[in-house]
Amino acid sequence: MRGFGSDNHSGVHPDILKALSDANVGHAPSYGTDELTEKCQELFKTHFGKSADAFFVFNGTAANVLSLKTMMKSFESCFVTDMSHMNQDECAAPEFFAGKLIAVKSINGKLTIPELEKHYIRLGDQHYTQPRVISLTQPTEVGTLYSLEEIKTLTTWAKSKNLLVHMDGARFVNAVYKLSCSMSQMTTDLGVDVLSFGGTKNGLMFGEAVVVLNPILGKDFKYIRKQAAQLPSKTRFIAAQFLAFFNNDLYKKIAQHSCDMAQYFNEKLSGKVKINYPVQSNSLFAEIPQPLVKKLKQQYFFYVWDEKTFECRLMTSWDTQKEDIDGFTNFLVSLM
Amino acid sequence: MRGFGSDNHSGVHPDILKALSDANVGHAPSYGTDELTEKCQELFKTHFGKSADAFFVFNGTAANVLSLKTMMKSFESCFVTDMSHMNQDECAAPEFFAGKLIAVKSINGKLTIPELEKHYIRLGDQHYTQPRVISLTQPTEVGTLYSLEEIKTLTTWAKSKNLLVHMDGARFVNAVYKLSCSMSQMTTDLGVDVLSFGGTKNGLMFGEAVVVLNPILGKDFKYIRKQAAQLPSKTRFIAAQFLAFFNNDLYKKIAQHSCDMAQYFNEKLSGKVKINYPVQSNSLFAEIPQPLVKKLKQQYFFYVWDEKTFECRLMTSWDTQKEDIDGFTNFLVSLM
Amino acid sequence: MRGFGSDNHSGVHPDILKALSDANVGHAPSYGTDELTEKCQELFKTHFGKSADAFFVFNGTAANVLSLKTMMKSFESCFVTDMSHMNQDECAAPEFFAGKLIAVKSINGKLTIPELEKHYIRLGDQHYTQPRVISLTQPTEVGTLYSLEEIKTLTTWAKSKNLLVHMDGARFVNAVYKLSCSMSQMTTDLGVDVLSFGGTKNGLMFGEAVVVLNPILGKDFKYIRKQAAQLPSKTRFIAAQFLAFFNNDLYKKIAQHSCDMAQYFNEKLSGKVKINYPVQSNSLFAEIPQPLVKKLKQQYFFYVWDEKTFECRLMTSWDTQKEDIDGFTNFLVSLM
Amino acid sequence: MRGFGSDNHSGVHPDILKALSDANVGHAPSYGTDELTEKCQELFKTHFGKSADAFFVFNGTAANVLSLKTMMKSFESCFVTDMSHMNQDECAAPEFFAGKLIAVKSINGKLTIPELEKHYIRLGDQHYTQPRVISLTQPTEVGTLYSLEEIKTLTTWAKSKNLLVHMDGARFVNAVYKLSCSMSQMTTDLGVDVLSFGGTKNGLMFGEAVVVLNPILGKDFKYIRKQAAQLPSKTRFIAAQFLAFFNNDLYKKIAQHSCDMAQYFNEKLSGKVKINYPVQSNSLFAEIPQPLVKKLKQQYFFYVWDEKTFECRLMTSWDTQKEDIDGFTNFLVSLM
Repeated sequence: MRGFGSDNHSGVHPDILKALSDANVGHAPSYGTDELTEKCQELFKTHFGKSADAFFVFNGTAANVLSLKTMMKSFESCFVTDMSHMNQDECAAPEFFAGKLIAVKSINGKLTIPELEKHYIRLGDQHYTQPRVISLTQPTEVGTLYSLEEIKTLTTWAKSKNLLVHMDGARFVNAVYKLSCSMSQMTTDLGVDVLSFGGTKNGLMFGEAVVVLNPILGKDFKYIRKQAAQLPSKTRFIAAQFLAFFNNDLYKKIAQHSCDMAQYFNEKLSGKVKINYPVQSNSLFAEIPQPLVKKLKQQYFFYVWDEKTFECRLMTSWDTQKEDIDGFTNFLVSLM
Repeated sequence: MRGFGSDNHSGVHPDILKALSDANVGHAPSYGTDELTEKCQELFKTHFGKSADAFFVFNGTAANVLSLKTMMKSFESCFVTDMSHMNQDECAAPEFFAGKLIAVKSINGKLTIPELEKHYIRLGDQHYTQPRVISLTQPTEVGTLYSLEEIKTLTTWAKSKNLLVHMDGARFVNAVYKLSCSMSQMTTDLGVDVLSFGGTKNGLMFGEAVVVLNPILGKDFKYIRKQAAQLPSKTRFIAAQFLAFFNNDLYKKIAQHSCDMAQYFNEKLSGKVKINYPVQSNSLFAEIPQPLVKKLKQQYFFYVWDEKTFECRLMTSWDTQKEDIDGFTNFLVSLM
Repeated sequence: MRGFGSDNHSGVHPDILKALSDANVGHAPSYGTDELTEKCQELFKTHFGKSADAFFVFNGTAANVLSLKTMMKSFESCFVTDMSHMNQDECAAPEFFAGKLIAVKSINGKLTIPELEKHYIRLGDQHYTQPRVISLTQPTEVGTLYSLEEIKTLTTWAKSKNLLVHMDGARFVNAVYKLSCSMSQMTTDLGVDVLSFGGTKNGLMFGEAVVVLNPILGKDFKYIRKQAAQLPSKTRFIAAQFLAFFNNDLYKKIAQHSCDMAQYFNEKLSGKVKINYPVQSNSLFAEIPQPLVKKLKQQYFFYVWDEKTFECRLMTSWDTQKEDIDGFTNFLVSLM
Repeated sequence: MRGFGSDNHSGVHPDILKALSDANVGHAPSYGTDELTEKCQELFKTHFGKSADAFFVFNGTAANVLSLKTMMKSFESCFVTDMSHMNQDECAAPEFFAGKLIAVKSINGKLTIPELEKHYIRLGDQHYTQPRVISLTQPTEVGTLYSLEEIKTLTTWAKSKNLLVHMDGARFVNAVYKLSCSMSQMTTDLGVDVLSFGGTKNGLMFGEAVVVLNPILGKDFKYIRKQAAQLPSKTRFIAAQFLAFFNNDLYKKIAQHSCDMAQYFNEKLSGKVKINYPVQSNSLFAEIPQPLVKKLKQQYFFYVWDEKTFECRLMTSWDTQKEDIDGFTNFLVSLM
């Protein structure tokens, strides 16, 4: 049964599962020294530029907090939106591994310069954590997208303030698909310093990559990762998944399917319930009357995002089918 | 090509790979709330007793350091052997996550009470880290085993000193096989408080379990794990592996094969090179003359463990074949 | 020259300086085992009840962060006001030593239950830091006071939610004076668990006390303090200061003078500039037109608290004189 | 009554107490921005060279651990002797604030290159903490001294290995006196990077200085200090003490007296009990038969350093008198 709970409720894309099986031959050195990992790291350079260094870690929390640890010291701070995953859903992992988060009011899930500037204060004041990083989530937690121009504006502002830029890309390839750009056009070319490149939410079994784009930042990463208990031993099995993900642009097909399903969902629900944000990635936030939510949940898994307004998050995935959406919509209509 | 570098150089056991494939159906809730994970947690209770709580983490470093974090505070210390993995090979992860390690002289890779007592000092002295945990590795880093009696002696001593007992069982099932006992007979019944239960080195793709045997210790583990970036999202794929591992005693077959291969290797090398420790698990430590090492390494991967004596570690795995060992031995003899 | 910058700009009260001199005789054991320290700890019990344990630390940051470390784990959170010193002025020390702060909207500098309840969420959710402590500042950062009833309301709410209560009392004795109560009536009797008892801002040279009122919390404090580099060696010189502070109710005279001076200041400025908060301790927040601020600052040291409204903080101290206030006011009037 | 327990059992030198009193005039800005602090920082430059930056902290633990935090990252390690204060007596503060300590076998309390080289291993190996700092204690914990040549040898070795050099100088001025050199001749000129400059054990009431000699290391210190809860507010009272300490070479008189008293003690005990180390600073380590220790302790405070050999530490101070030593010696003789 497929619901709309999260894109990590779906399983592994068949091509990626096959790649895991194919990689299971004989022995391979561990801890990132195998052939597949080396090949995969080259592929990341192809996509992100020669200076890009990709490091595998196990999950998205790790990708984010180790990205931050690479960029900031314990007395420094990172600007995130008030609704960011790092601020709301990581059980203080960023504070434990890296440093203080400064929550900035979001607009459509995004950081904006006027709000950032309110918190860019007290430079050189020893009593205050010193601003060091801005972290933008692309796509955002509410399924919206920064345009390339918006990213450029933020990175330009950041550079002018001597701040580094992190991109939390748990669903990065969805943004690549929707903005019809290359990976480097959304990151390296715009001045992003470190990217959390998500895999698990786009059809991998497990595994994310920290892609260090700014070459002066990656030097210590291998030690940071090991000390953080994030060095996988049988790395070939992460590499194999990413190789399949990149092969024949599978990642783009996965992203396209997820995003198109969300678009389809949006069209189906349009006029029936209130949709709270522009649907630009693979999730919708719909306000559904409370009595209906209860009944819908008996058949479909999804999350109520706001207990007061009954805003519900509906998330599509690489394996979402039109009949899932049709079924949900018809059921909803029948309850109205 | 198969070498003797490490049991994490081998791939995934076919039955476990099949289980991953079988688990890849439809949607499943994430973060440990899926059916397979629940079923697997019950299975751990079957093996370790009703009070046992198993928590999946990604790798062995995490299993160890989060075990420690569950047992000790930052100003407390944990006794380990001087040659322990935690002290030598974790890039200060235990100190980062948990607290200070006190390295105790090992005998055949093991902790002993006379050596422990030398360091069990300064209780109540605020200037000194307070002893809280002993961590024993079973099998040890040099392939030896604590007998059940030896474990009992250590846990009894520990309890009498108000210390908790951790067992680093990266290759735990090998010990279970060799000592012909049940899992709980080596742990729960003897007073072990927390066990790092290894999977990756015995045929899994990834995934270990922290098994909390002492029920007063597990309460906070889920938060500790999340904050440590060790909460997997698609947990069904770790659960599926462990379910296959336990199913029809596959774990025992894997352990038996690895250990028997080490025994066979020991017999083949006996009289030819010096073997430095009793061969009781799946590794041998053999002193091989330097010029031969160089040549052997051109054909077989293995590690020189001591750069002075040219003690080499030869490790067998679930997929080691007699012909691998015969080939190595014949080649060695031909070089002598 | 005396300004209105901070009560830590003033020096040491003469009686306290004399006590330091008197204590400077012969040898005394170090690290808290001297007679004066023991005597002083008894005195704290007299003021706060038999279960109270007082521990000296060097400064207010330490008193606060070690109080928190005693009360919470790294994955737990502490509610503070958005304008609290811990959140704004400790350079992420609370996050480094203890855990996450949740900033709650303040009203007149105070925590209120409706605002707290907005953040008392997601209990048992492993993705979210678990609420554990509320920290209230008494007097607040803006010179207001919680009444005993308000404190009781907060502690009752906290207990009902299984939360611990910390009081940041950098200027605690001012509150004791203004509310005409005993020390225990404001803390122990109301269910406060740990108090940061300030000395430096009320006439000491250095030294604060963490007063652990809840007896189940103090057990580990001596180790926490030592590991945090906050165990003073020549403790007699902190004890001597606090003994003098308590002797003949000197603390009350100091508090009375500081607070009465603020009251006098308030009367003098009344009708001339806007005073933003009730003046209930030893500080005023006055909106002074920008051009006047510049000129006033040439003769008197004080801080502009808000760069937009030109709200200025004027702080009195144990050594503030009426002529200082008269001088400031007359100068201000002359500029108008 | 004066014993031989520790040089922190003695009180405050009268000249320093007077300086505290003299500094207690009017208001002074806090947090290191007062005139006395600025004057004192200049004085440190006079003694240590223009690049030297002195930062006040509260105690010796803080001076050491913040020195380390300035020099190393959490995955790096610092070489210390097995008997070093940092390894034995800081309750894991170095591990909490900075990183892993590697304990090196000491010879007469000192680091030596052959022993260091045994541990200078596994560079670039991500599984192992990377060596970054050596910390030498001058004078050592057993009252011996590194000669200038010995320090030069160590710093030269360190530089050749890309290691930084920390000097734990809790009793630094004693070494300066005994080696008849200037402060910079023992540090800056030899390539020491950061010095913990002790005050409390040489007649101050409280206060130590971290002296950053290598200019590329000090940039972040003010934030590190604040976050570590080591920024004093009324800094003028530390500055005043150090100004008096330097004034008219008071520090040298204090050092001379302490060291000469130890020398006198050594002469008196010579031939009566076994002295275990060369007496080169202000402490002796004497083996005194157990029954005598018990009786001596009834009249004189001192520590048994080794419970097996009854090696006792006898420490002199700025206020030790010949009659104290004569009294102890005569009593000892009377017991023999």
